[in-house]
Amino acid sequence: MPLLTLTTDFGLADWYVAAVKGVVLGLAPGTSIVDLSHQVPPGDVETAAFLLAAAAPAFPPGTVHLAVVDPGVGSDRRLLLVENAGAFFLAPDNGLLTPFLPPLGDGVARAAHRPDLYRPSPGQTFHGRDRFAPLAAALLNGTPAAALGPVIDDPVLLPGEPPRREGDTLLGRVIHVDRFGNLVTDIPAAWLQAPRFEASLAGHTVTRRVTHYRELAPGEPGLLPGSLGTLEVSLDGADLATLWNAGRGVRVRIIRTP
Amino acid sequence: MPLLTLTTDFGLADWYVAAVKGVVLGLAPGTSIVDLSHQVPPGDVETAAFLLAAAAPAFPPGTVHLAVVDPGVGSDRRLLLVENAGAFFLAPDNGLLTPFLPPLGDGVARAAHRPDLYRPSPGQTFHGRDRFAPLAAALLNGTPAAALGPVIDDPVLLPGEPPRREGDTLLGRVIHVDRFGNLVTDIPAAWLQAPRFEASLAGHTVTRRVTHYRELAPGEPGLLPGSLGTLEVSLDGADLATLWNAGRGVRVRIIRTP
Amino acid sequence: MPLLTLTTDFGLADWYVAAVKGVVLGLAPGTSIVDLSHQVPPGDVETAAFLLAAAAPAFPPGTVHLAVVDPGVGSDRRLLLVENAGAFFLAPDNGLLTPFLPPLGDGVARAAHRPDLYRPSPGQTFHGRDRFAPLAAALLNGTPAAALGPVIDDPVLLPGEPPRREGDTLLGRVIHVDRFGNLVTDIPAAWLQAPRFEASLAGHTVTRRVTHYRELAPGEPGLLPGSLGTLEVSLDGADLATLWNAGRGVRVRIIRTP
Repeated sequence: MPLLTLTTDFGLADWYVAAVKGVVLGLAPGTSIVDLSHQVPPGDVETAAFLLAAAAPAFPPGTVHLAVVDPGVGSDRRLLLVENAGAFFLAPDNGLLTPFLPPLGDGVARAAHRPDLYRPSPGQTFHGRDRFAPLAAALLNGTPAAALGPVIDDPVLLPGEPPRREGDTLLGRVIHVDRFGNLVTDIPAAWLQAPRFEASLAGHTVTRRVTHYRELAPGEPGLLPGSLGTLEVSLDGADLATLWNAGRGVRVRIIRTP
Repeated sequence: MPLLTLTTDFGLADWYVAAVKGVVLGLAPGTSIVDLSHQVPPGDVETAAFLLAAAAPAFPPGTVHLAVVDPGVGSDRRLLLVENAGAFFLAPDNGLLTPFLPPLGDGVARAAHRPDLYRPSPGQTFHGRDRFAPLAAALLNGTPAAALGPVIDDPVLLPGEPPRREGDTLLGRVIHVDRFGNLVTDIPAAWLQAPRFEASLAGHTVTRRVTHYRELAPGEPGLLPGSLGTLEVSLDGADLATLWNAGRGVRVRIIRTP
Repeated sequence: MPLLTLTTDFGLADWYVAAVKGVVLGLAPGTSIVDLSHQVPPGDVETAAFLLAAAAPAFPPGTVHLAVVDPGVGSDRRLLLVENAGAFFLAPDNGLLTPFLPPLGDGVARAAHRPDLYRPSPGQTFHGRDRFAPLAAALLNGTPAAALGPVIDDPVLLPGEPPRREGDTLLGRVIHVDRFGNLVTDIPAAWLQAPRFEASLAGHTVTRRVTHYRELAPGEPGLLPGSLGTLEVSLDGADLATLWNAGRGVRVRIIRTP
């Protein structure tokens, strides 16, 4: 059963997502299509990369992940195909697939280029429908990745600063804010071994560690191991990100206390 | 053809819904998945219960309905499995399945508990992906409900006050406001037999009964039998809920007039 | 593999879309359902017509397109079934299918009427679930269009003024604003042959023509051939519609300049 996920900044009000699906289902009938998210802010490659990296491990081998956040559509930017951990990833070559490529992942990158498969198009503004959808359909129909384009060694990568440990100090940042206002950090939960600590972010201090939200008292912020294995800063039943006006990129520093 | 519906408060911008689907489709390939709603307000168990109860009768027997509005995730709250009218319902044991359990429904409740099926997890914040999805997949693959956990007789139920008749007076409340601003009440449409009546709600009075919106004059509110068989208070082509600033919980009183 | 698209003004928070899908999947199991858009503004038949016309060409022959923007639900408005270019379109007879009917398309219109298929209903407010869904399922199951109702020659059509050429002058209007703020016009891109031109709309002037967004300097508006084959007025990476406060219906005039 071929399985495709879609991640875009197309939104849900428009006809764009449906057009991509129509092309895929015409070429690869019976494909199960999962909307990963279509509410990536316009042109926000970094958010798309995060969402795809977060969700992909939940999908079975062989899944094709198509992500179209493509401010450079129609320019000479390449179409990227990455194989990583048994799955296929298609996206513009703009850094979106960074999590699946060295040094973060061990994927192999290809410059997909199969004009014979592309849909004749009245313009250069919708490669999601006209180029990426036929490429995805080819993969879903069993075409080997190698047939879609040559391996390249210079895919575009997003800049990034990994979290780090300096003695007893953990340094990282908020990499995502979810609908509940949880501040998801990039600091692995396993790094926090100190029995007592002080976490500083956005001008606030957190000293409580819990395993689930309900352990927290009303209004009390806490650290907990989140669903990606990293630390999350949260309130119970309330939106911490809004309360603290904190978002992606906020620096987090955790020190051991006596 | 296995069929699954999903109701959550995860929103559509995030990766959470996709992760649940990825796990289900990995374990039960070919499942048709219908998004019931993912825009339940965070933690709003009552809204989730309403939406699920409203939509479930439209689905064929054997459908598995998974609803994850789970503010107690990670605590010792149970995972509930209810069989009702040939369908299966999975949700946290927090009242979400009240409409399918006595006294409202005649479902049988079980405490689902199959750690052998659960996904190894880095945290306790995402049982939708790590526990509920594997349980749903088991049902979709034909595992009998009895194999997932023992019958229990104390599921959590939402408090509720049913609509009632006192002589010629009908008493109920608004249980839902839809996108069009229709005020959906819990008063069965069949109860309103009086040729002339006066309905009072939110400081306003309605005396007109119609069968469809277009019968109403511009700006004229009316009662009509809605799609759940209860009375709805509506305008034609305009948003009554916003105009009257009326929402869920508003009391409705209908008296017979001479 | 039967394929259905859905276009509605139901929104995504409510249970309405799921109920339509439940009925379809109960009657035509295994159908692939694609959400075209459910965020059509309430009652906005014109937007629904645009979205459906834009997306439909991406779908394979045999696709059933169901569109329910139905402010006249429950009145005596007819249920329309149109066959056009190998696809089937179901919608209320309120103009929604105008793009597929003469003079714009060459579809054949039928007044669908099969009470024997309709779902018993407590009210007249949800024909999407109770009438359209069973009709769609019948088509998906192979029932010929002719069995659903007689051909009619007076379907309701939306008023419209096609774009036109007067000598070297092109006249049209904005027919859609997308999530990126692109102003999609109805002027065929092929009409613009003049090497130098001046396009006027919303009190602004555009003189640059490009093939993709990235060719534009920051803040510089340009015309480009869009994904429907018509001219689009856009900025690179910014929302022109908001900046100019321009929306659907804005007139566009392009003159040749020396």
